[in-house]
Amino acid sequence: MSPENQGLEAILDGIRYDSNGLVPAVVQDAKDGQVLMVAYMNREALRRTLTEGVTCFWSRSRKEFWVKGATSGNTQRVVRVAADCDKDCILVVVEQKGVACHTGTRSCFFSEIRAGDGSLRVIDTNRPIHTP
Amino acid sequence: MSPENQGLEAILDGIRYDSNGLVPAVVQDAKDGQVLMVAYMNREALRRTLTEGVTCFWSRSRKEFWVKGATSGNTQRVVRVAADCDKDCILVVVEQKGVACHTGTRSCFFSEIRAGDGSLRVIDTNRPIHTP
Repeated sequence: MSPENQGLEAILDGIRYDSNGLVPAVVQDAKDGQVLMVAYMNREALRRTLTEGVTCFWSRSRKEFWVKGATSGNTQRVVRVAADCDKDCILVVVEQKGVACHTGTRSCFFSEIRAGDGSLRVIDTNRPIHTP
Repeated sequence: MSPENQGLEAILDGIRYDSNGLVPAVVQDAKDGQVLMVAYMNREALRRTLTEGVTCFWSRSRKEFWVKGATSGNTQRVVRVAADCDKDCILVVVEQKGVACHTGTRSCFFSEIRAGDGSLRVIDTNRPIHTP
């Protein structure tokens, strides 16, 4: 095992996976900061994301690895990966090809909940919701 | 119960909480799109976030509600709230007062994992990592 890979193993060991061996991964667009989706990674999916340069998740429903865009073509090229302060969440900044959501919208977060009246409405998902 | 609150109850019912009654909530800065932190909400924390206008989480370690900034003063004023496509994750866009992370950094995501050599380094957390 090369020193480089030993370093990576130590980092992968240092992540605090939950009782199912998973951490949530927030995927953010490198271009405009839009939060595109949240999915889950196990140790191997995180390693693949870091070493293969495209996002790889663990599908909780299908119980299998899920290389984003492998069938749809909507791949996510990895630009940056960060862990949070207590190492139980991952942030992946990507260049998104096409759309991120399986519904065909750019971001999965297209259902805004309005605080005032408690209604749910579809927002313009081509525009990041953090912009006015 | 007012019609407005019935609408809110239906929305709160429609969220897919996990076996612990929680959903992850991604907190994003309204100003520059920086992903600040990820914490967890139960049904009541989400309701309080929506109705009180500042973020409220459920602390998994302390097993109590946690109004962000209640003791530190680093409050998060809620600008927008959205659910994702399968309703098992929340995005909260906020105006962050002070810093978001308990370590004193603006964002919790200050440990960048470098894909190439597998090293971990602290990044400049005053700059969102989605920007070049």
